Amino acid sequence: MTIHPVTGFTLAGTHCGLKPNGHDDIALLVSERPCQAAGVFTTNRVKAAPVLYDQAILARPDAAIRAVIANTGSANACTGAQGLENARATAAQVADIVGCAPDDVLTLSTGVIGMPLPMDAIRRGVATLGGMLRADGWASAAAAVMTTDTRPKLASVQVGGYTITGIAKGAGMIAPNMATMLAVIATDAAAPRDLLERALAAATENSFNRIVVDGDMSTNDTVLVLANGASGVAVADEAAFTAALADVCAQLAQAIVRDGEGATKFVTVHVTGAADEAGAVAIARSIATSALVKTAFYGADPNWGRILCAAGYAGVDLDPGRLALWLLDASGAPAIQLVAGGQPLDYDEPAAIALMQTPEWGARLDLGAGAASTWVWTCDLSHDYVTINGHYRT
Amino acid sequence: MTIHPVTGFTLAGTHCGLKPNGHDDIALLVSERPCQAAGVFTTNRVKAAPVLYDQAILARPDAAIRAVIANTGSANACTGAQGLENARATAAQVADIVGCAPDDVLTLSTGVIGMPLPMDAIRRGVATLGGMLRADGWASAAAAVMTTDTRPKLASVQVGGYTITGIAKGAGMIAPNMATMLAVIATDAAAPRDLLERALAAATENSFNRIVVDGDMSTNDTVLVLANGASGVAVADEAAFTAALADVCAQLAQAIVRDGEGATKFVTVHVTGAADEAGAVAIARSIATSALVKTAFYGADPNWGRILCAAGYAGVDLDPGRLALWLLDASGAPAIQLVAGGQPLDYDEPAAIALMQTPEWGARLDLGAGAASTWVWTCDLSHDYVTINGHYRT
Repeated sequence: MTIHPVTGFTLAGTHCGLKPNGHDDIALLVSERPCQAAGVFTTNRVKAAPVLYDQAILARPDAAIRAVIANTGSANACTGAQGLENARATAAQVADIVGCAPDDVLTLSTGVIGMPLPMDAIRRGVATLGGMLRADGWASAAAAVMTTDTRPKLASVQVGGYTITGIAKGAGMIAPNMATMLAVIATDAAAPRDLLERALAAATENSFNRIVVDGDMSTNDTVLVLANGASGVAVADEAAFTAALADVCAQLAQAIVRDGEGATKFVTVHVTGAADEAGAVAIARSIATSALVKTAFYGADPNWGRILCAAGYAGVDLDPGRLALWLLDASGAPAIQLVAGGQPLDYDEPAAIALMQTPEWGARLDLGAGAASTWVWTCDLSHDYVTINGHYRT
Repeated sequence: MTIHPVTGFTLAGTHCGLKPNGHDDIALLVSERPCQAAGVFTTNRVKAAPVLYDQAILARPDAAIRAVIANTGSANACTGAQGLENARATAAQVADIVGCAPDDVLTLSTGVIGMPLPMDAIRRGVATLGGMLRADGWASAAAAVMTTDTRPKLASVQVGGYTITGIAKGAGMIAPNMATMLAVIATDAAAPRDLLERALAAATENSFNRIVVDGDMSTNDTVLVLANGASGVAVADEAAFTAALADVCAQLAQAIVRDGEGATKFVTVHVTGAADEAGAVAIARSIATSALVKTAFYGADPNWGRILCAAGYAGVDLDPGRLALWLLDASGAPAIQLVAGGQPLDYDEPAAIALMQTPEWGARLDLGAGAASTWVWTCDLSHDYVTINGHYRT
């Protein structure tokens, strides 16, 4: 995958001591000119300080963003007034380096909840980053925001004379509506705020809001998009821009699930034949979140009854006698039908197991009730998930 | 624990070949006289045949129950019209042995979804059970309904001149509202149907509806209570009867969580200071179901941020700045306060870890918003849960 630099943006990642293992742990993105920006944030009632801080900045109609600073190690959540003050101080230091106002800087944090930001380390990190910024720093920045991620997550598209490139992090605490996930996407297109907001809302709905690792929704989930106009191209075709942004978001969202904590399989759960899309989404999420379904995926066990069961408790009316279920191959094509009319078929079980042992496949449940459909990307629940989360802090 | 026989009831459990490992797999309870009966059933839209069958019988005002037959191995769910016919045929065979009408027999099934009931084995089992019934057969019946359970679950109380004794099974697919759990409770008190229904609804609300193993709600969950009046004592004090029934239900529900699949710890999650009970319940269930909270319990990691985070996404308004959190000892007494005003205290972390390494303790989250409170019983999420459910059918 080619990661295209975005005109007018520079980035860097480095290590400042937030992670005991010595990995890079802080990243900075700077735009040479003010950006229009939009954000989508966690709906958790317990919001981290950087979420509250960024929401306040973006609530201003005249917000003109110049930089985003992101740290790992501490989520700066449940840290009270001091947490907000630490976010503000970090932004102010970045503003000094960039030559802008503190209110032109957005902040992102991920890591342990309740730990105050180690400000000495943050200050060292910001100072170091100021001398490291490069137009091709995307991979460096992506690596520096990893926590339990095993690989950096980047995506990039070029259309209509402008570029959209983004990075994301996230591997656990991934629920259907946002996650312990951060994403920063930059474009050199020129676009007004309201267009960015519409495009981001549409793009996240079909990407970051369609992923499940463990069903937990974090205190810090944030997706930011910044448009600095440095390409000289104004977005004329909003639909094309939205599609390109959605493409970047979908690549990043899929990368999060593929790198889900302990995940060994990437599974797309399709729900078709629903009476309406809301019902399809509720059922797809219920299946994709079920611990029993996800452990069966892990064990490559075509235990389709667990899928029907999870559909049944999604709170959506359905007729069990009309349900049909297929396993899909990696391309999404039907491979093996397991259920028709709500009852099992005499399918080829060894073939089903063999398919489920591959790293990427899907399942499609048809409700036989209408024409609405949707999908959710999920992963399996493995021993390693338990290992990773039983002792995350140590 | 003493398990008191219940006058007029006999039971037995035996092996008929439903379980390849040769363990007992079918149980029968018979009352010498007709019983008033009440049931609480799964709210899953995909209901197993025995659930539909029992609901139809209990919908008749003149239902007079003489027997309950329970099998493991096959859940008789997603089995269509043949599944209902198999439930009916099983009931008819039991009725022949007992000397009653088929409609006087209730059926329970648990096991793999979508597998037709192996009727040859069931017929052999029912015939054998007919010659084995004993007043002290409770432990034998409880053992015969086990699936991934590691131990039988029984409870018994005597009050006011009558006895209430019950058995239950369940270890996985245990969600806050019922579970892959079956429970049969018998009393020799005389009680009208409406009293039984009220008492069972109240008792399940504070027992089987307050437990979580994995958040999955099964297709088969059923709690039955049968009252045959053989003690000659009519229930005069409904509150006392309800309390005694609730005691039996609570013992059985706790036994299910203690034996949760892979569980190493029994944790009571209390929520206090809520504005209303519905909010308290939603938050307690969210905490008790969170995979991240449960893996932290497994790892004895006082990662209180995950508890606040799970409270935050329960869909209930709360003020993060008013949250307080304690670890409780096995008696429910506060042991260590971790959080006050939404922020961490400088608590004794080694002591917290040591407490969390014990097999039974609790956590209390106070919302600082009102006087309502509740609790949920849960267990940890361990490597063994994944092992058990990754390959359940094999």
